[in-house]
Amino acid sequence: MHFTSQTSSNGVIERSFTLDDIPGVLWSPALPSPAPLVLMGHPGGLHKKAEGLVARAIHLVSTQGFHVASIDAPGHGDRPRSAEDARWVDQLMRARAAGEPLGSIVSAFNASIAERAVPEWQRTLDALQALPEIDEDRLVGYSGMTLATEIGMRLAVAEPRIGAAVLGSAFASEPLIEAAQLVTAPVLYLLPWDDLEIDRESGLALFDALGPAEKVMHVTPGPHQRVPWVETEDAARFFTRVLATATLAA
Amino acid sequence: MHFTSQTSSNGVIERSFTLDDIPGVLWSPALPSPAPLVLMGHPGGLHKKAEGLVARAIHLVSTQGFHVASIDAPGHGDRPRSAEDARWVDQLMRARAAGEPLGSIVSAFNASIAERAVPEWQRTLDALQALPEIDEDRLVGYSGMTLATEIGMRLAVAEPRIGAAVLGSAFASEPLIEAAQLVTAPVLYLLPWDDLEIDRESGLALFDALGPAEKVMHVTPGPHQRVPWVETEDAARFFTRVLATATLAA
Repeated sequence: MHFTSQTSSNGVIERSFTLDDIPGVLWSPALPSPAPLVLMGHPGGLHKKAEGLVARAIHLVSTQGFHVASIDAPGHGDRPRSAEDARWVDQLMRARAAGEPLGSIVSAFNASIAERAVPEWQRTLDALQALPEIDEDRLVGYSGMTLATEIGMRLAVAEPRIGAAVLGSAFASEPLIEAAQLVTAPVLYLLPWDDLEIDRESGLALFDALGPAEKVMHVTPGPHQRVPWVETEDAARFFTRVLATATLAA
Repeated sequence: MHFTSQTSSNGVIERSFTLDDIPGVLWSPALPSPAPLVLMGHPGGLHKKAEGLVARAIHLVSTQGFHVASIDAPGHGDRPRSAEDARWVDQLMRARAAGEPLGSIVSAFNASIAERAVPEWQRTLDALQALPEIDEDRLVGYSGMTLATEIGMRLAVAEPRIGAAVLGSAFASEPLIEAAQLVTAPVLYLLPWDDLEIDRESGLALFDALGPAEKVMHVTPGPHQRVPWVETEDAARFFTRVLATATLAA
């Protein structure tokens, strides 16, 4: 992991990094004390420094003193898009323009990205936990909607270091339902009640399928691009409550 | 309004009162400062000092410095049950014992109680706001599930002084859906996902029907008797955020 730049603003240090071919960002409190790490995924089509993601990351760092890391998903942000991914994107754009249902295309595309993204997040987590300012024994959080939920569900299944997740707004494909059933970490699931692209039933089915005893779903008016800010505050409290003392079982 | 007894414990003063034939309780901070009032309704079959209600009232008073008032609904607690109400209760008990659906009986019974309870809450609110320690210009909160939601929905429609409500676990009868559509105060709606008596679809339909732009639904595993304590904390923060500065429009 190589840090390539550092800026500081209002008590938050932002460091850009690369890990092999993965570009990422790490936000940390200027005065670090032992604090949990949250991995933050970006929605499909966006990137590691998408506006909403940065606002939520800064909130977590400045109100809870957390470290927050974000990386570009395969084919997103500063990363090249493969010919196969470009075909998916074309197919998606055509369906959206024609007003056709997006579920099957989005689910297949996101599953393909997630298959590549999960091991990338695991390598990123290895590298982050090797930093002196990040506690390697502590469980970490994961947060993200749409594409980032398709990745995060599977990451939470594959990776015992994920101790809490804030997810939402994914289509209830059969493979994702199966992944949801295997999640054991506490989950806060966000369901935007008036989403124009992702049906309500998908959110209800994914919440229903989620395995952990501690799960909660917050349903808010509006589409997935307009989740009220109070949910950012609730998510921060959720991470703080669940991760405050959580460590990997010996 | 006559206060009939007063006790004090851990910084919370509990005063019992009667208002004509309505028995009630008012919990207040021992060191009062200007703070909102929350009216708390009890579930069907219980009373003004039901265990869970008292725990939530004490939490609101001791963490947020609120005043909280609770009264016995008609035919509940220390109040006589009419012959007609007794017939409803018999019918309900028989249906429950036979494992029959309860929706139509509960909805009709609760609608009848709510018709009587709404003006009682309004008179209680008049009397409470006449107390020197309660600010008469401030909007008040209302909280309660099952029967208390049937009452609270209609109270929120009839009473402009209700500025925030925490509701949940009611059957989506046609009259209640119509009331929900007329609510304008922000609502936090609780949906216990595994309720044995009240169907999920009722919760989803009532949340969907609710009028206000600011509404949120929290869905948690378990039945309505087992809403996780974190929801009590979330409700307290919801009331604080919405009611902190809310006053009746001039």
